[in-house]
Amino acid sequence: MKKIGIIGGMGPKATCDLMQKIIMSTDAQNDQDHIHVFVDCNTNIPDRTKAIFGQGESPVPELIKSGKRLQSMGADLLVMSCNTAHYFYDELVECLDIPLLNMPDETTIYLKDMGVKKVGVLATDGTIESGVYQKALKKQGINTVYPSSENQKFIIELIYDYIKSGRDDYEDSRLRDILDELKEKGAEKIILGCTELPIAFERLGVNEDLVDPTLILAYSAVYFAGAKLNVKVG
Amino acid sequence: MKKIGIIGGMGPKATCDLMQKIIMSTDAQNDQDHIHVFVDCNTNIPDRTKAIFGQGESPVPELIKSGKRLQSMGADLLVMSCNTAHYFYDELVECLDIPLLNMPDETTIYLKDMGVKKVGVLATDGTIESGVYQKALKKQGINTVYPSSENQKFIIELIYDYIKSGRDDYEDSRLRDILDELKEKGAEKIILGCTELPIAFERLGVNEDLVDPTLILAYSAVYFAGAKLNVKVG
Repeated sequence: MKKIGIIGGMGPKATCDLMQKIIMSTDAQNDQDHIHVFVDCNTNIPDRTKAIFGQGESPVPELIKSGKRLQSMGADLLVMSCNTAHYFYDELVECLDIPLLNMPDETTIYLKDMGVKKVGVLATDGTIESGVYQKALKKQGINTVYPSSENQKFIIELIYDYIKSGRDDYEDSRLRDILDELKEKGAEKIILGCTELPIAFERLGVNEDLVDPTLILAYSAVYFAGAKLNVKVG
Repeated sequence: MKKIGIIGGMGPKATCDLMQKIIMSTDAQNDQDHIHVFVDCNTNIPDRTKAIFGQGESPVPELIKSGKRLQSMGADLLVMSCNTAHYFYDELVECLDIPLLNMPDETTIYLKDMGVKKVGVLATDGTIESGVYQKALKKQGINTVYPSSENQKFIIELIYDYIKSGRDDYEDSRLRDILDELKEKGAEKIILGCTELPIAFERLGVNEDLVDPTLILAYSAVYFAGAKLNVKVG
């Protein structure tokens, strides 16, 4: 089995969520059946959205440091627990000697395989404005819809003021309204395109319209690591 | 802030649980307020209980490898997400250049501070037979009680056949019976002395009689790392 390295800290909870999904997606009877995983929960990585808008320093130097540290630990394969950070994917991958799975690409290939033609994307302004998902989806011939600016503002609050700040006193009805809006706009599936969002939306229970890129990335990681996939999950 | 290294993989879920508890115990407004954490979820570490009973190879060489890897990543402070592994604490700590917090010691100091005189211990046979908790508790003048051999057998099943195997179809009433038995024997508090047990018992909801060494270790780690403690937790 290959060893997986997680470039994390973006945010810490999302890092833990990806690790947990890798564990749950592995068919294992004991500790030793599980994949050897290294995590660098690097909380020095600057905010990705700010950097994309030119309002903060680039996360690339810290991303490279984490990638190289994980490489030197013995990782054969890297994953990154932040959608927005994939804006810097090409810059990062150039500096690494081992493969880095691409979360938006893995997610859109999965959607294409399902025959989906139009999806809603919930994400940070950085992910949306930079077109991280739109470009990946366009490559697969899938159209994209986004929430109204008012709903988008709430998504940003949800990510920064609630999940990243450890608060959970948001109203579930706001989440449902946003999903309804995207479905009215024709979305067949809705990508929770920020790793904090599956944490926020899991309170609504299982919803087949929602696509969790963290879970799809976990499946891909388990598959590429050569472990047995636990197909009961997700 | 100091950087924390988690010697993990014993088991993978317990590793994730410790990481999550460190994150939740940190008072943070954004990613950058959190502690930089490295994890080596080393699933090559052999079974600790088997090794204690002379039925399997020693986990010490792999524990040392993980400790040294985390040291070379830049960790200033180590923690280990397995109670039974603390049987090998002295052997391990000799080979490391940075401190390794001791989970049973942190837990028993916490209980002493609470004025507790008698505690129940739920743990693997390896932890119980080797006296990992009994010795630490005795140092603090605290007496120990254990479940009957029949209930102890169920605890082992719960750890190995359920939690480590990803199964959750055990009966809550069995858990409650075991807690009742220990309280009848005079236990004021009950230590969930295997890192898989808080995962199993959290289904029963909050119970003030239960002591989760993973959470206490997380508090200590946040404190020693110099981050702000989130006292709302636990």
